[in-house]
Amino acid sequence: MSKVHLVRNGLDELLTGLEEGDPVPAERDLAVRFGVARDTVRQALHELLLEGRVQRRGRGTVVAKPKLTQPLSLRSYTEGAERMGRKPGRILVTWEDIEATPDLAAGLDVEVAEPVMHLERVLLADNERIGLESTYLPLSRFAGLYDTFDPETSLYAAIRASGVYFASAEELIETILPTPREASLLLTTTAMPMLHLRRRSLDAQGQPIEVVRALYRGDRVAFQSTLVDDV
Amino acid sequence: MSKVHLVRNGLDELLTGLEEGDPVPAERDLAVRFGVARDTVRQALHELLLEGRVQRRGRGTVVAKPKLTQPLSLRSYTEGAERMGRKPGRILVTWEDIEATPDLAAGLDVEVAEPVMHLERVLLADNERIGLESTYLPLSRFAGLYDTFDPETSLYAAIRASGVYFASAEELIETILPTPREASLLLTTTAMPMLHLRRRSLDAQGQPIEVVRALYRGDRVAFQSTLVDDV
Repeated sequence: MSKVHLVRNGLDELLTGLEEGDPVPAERDLAVRFGVARDTVRQALHELLLEGRVQRRGRGTVVAKPKLTQPLSLRSYTEGAERMGRKPGRILVTWEDIEATPDLAAGLDVEVAEPVMHLERVLLADNERIGLESTYLPLSRFAGLYDTFDPETSLYAAIRASGVYFASAEELIETILPTPREASLLLTTTAMPMLHLRRRSLDAQGQPIEVVRALYRGDRVAFQSTLVDDV
Repeated sequence: MSKVHLVRNGLDELLTGLEEGDPVPAERDLAVRFGVARDTVRQALHELLLEGRVQRRGRGTVVAKPKLTQPLSLRSYTEGAERMGRKPGRILVTWEDIEATPDLAAGLDVEVAEPVMHLERVLLADNERIGLESTYLPLSRFAGLYDTFDPETSLYAAIRASGVYFASAEELIETILPTPREASLLLTTTAMPMLHLRRRSLDAQGQPIEVVRALYRGDRVAFQSTLVDDV
């Protein structure tokens, strides 16, 4: 077993005995405690940081909150966060009309270059930036949102209030590293693996409602799925 | 937009015109074509590599196969791979009895230190190493597998053949970087983000069948989920 791995195991045990928000001992103290070089401790702490077990706070490191577990469901981000006792929030980044690319046109069942509403928001849990979500909606159907929708609230609630009903969705889940822009909007680095979710939602008539592309910080979010035999 | 991003867009367009397995032009030719430094091209190609758009082959780079899309379902890896026209395979890494840790004991509903079967296999698609799966089974129930099960075949098929029926499962999906051991077993590097899946499967009586921890190469695998309104 490598030295980093041994330190990892020691730190895992140490963290189990600490509470959320408790400070993690300083690198030099941990190096003495485990009898290894400070670089070895730094590497082990970096792994724990990427996994979301610890977080930077000021100049120190503290035990992180558990990850936000998002159920894969037709419910909104708001409902998922509230289920876990976290306060959901959003910061508007972009709200504009764009012309449908061939991909968007296929996904939304509109013509290429037809106007599409693009809403890009940072997702917050307890005021922490955990995700970046781009939603694309056919403007012909949802232009009314410009008058009625507050972009710091739940989009799904606003869409439902307009009488549109989410009946099904297809999701594709991948992992990627963020671009510098994405990392910067999420206050992280381009070395932080992200959960990448693409979703296409349909109404009860099978008409596309939205195409979504969302990035979630891998250290702060997990997806949860319940499978039941459908035979 | 950064230079890397501009080259990325140029490469995206170039790749769209190529077929799977086609060689990607050499770095120096791309640097001339896009009028940038060779390091910029290298960085853009590295991003495409992590995303699974291109693959190394020998000393060159070729257009990669599309990712294997694994449906989140109670079906086996075998069925998922075959659905996509890929030949599934497995390489046995570990097959041993271990003592249940507190986590495993809780997951499998056995006593701590009770014997548990641990089966660790590399998952192949068309002979390419795409995942690493550790399955834990209560030995009291599944010891017979040592006599009947060929570890290079589908475990789910063998469990079903023994009369046990998968009725439901809970899955947790995260992203992490692999350890050096995991990266080495998957012929990749510790910089490659992985999809990390934990699963706990129950039979129709609600008895735990298995606890699974699987890592999938982020450049080769995506998960797919179909959501239908359950109201």
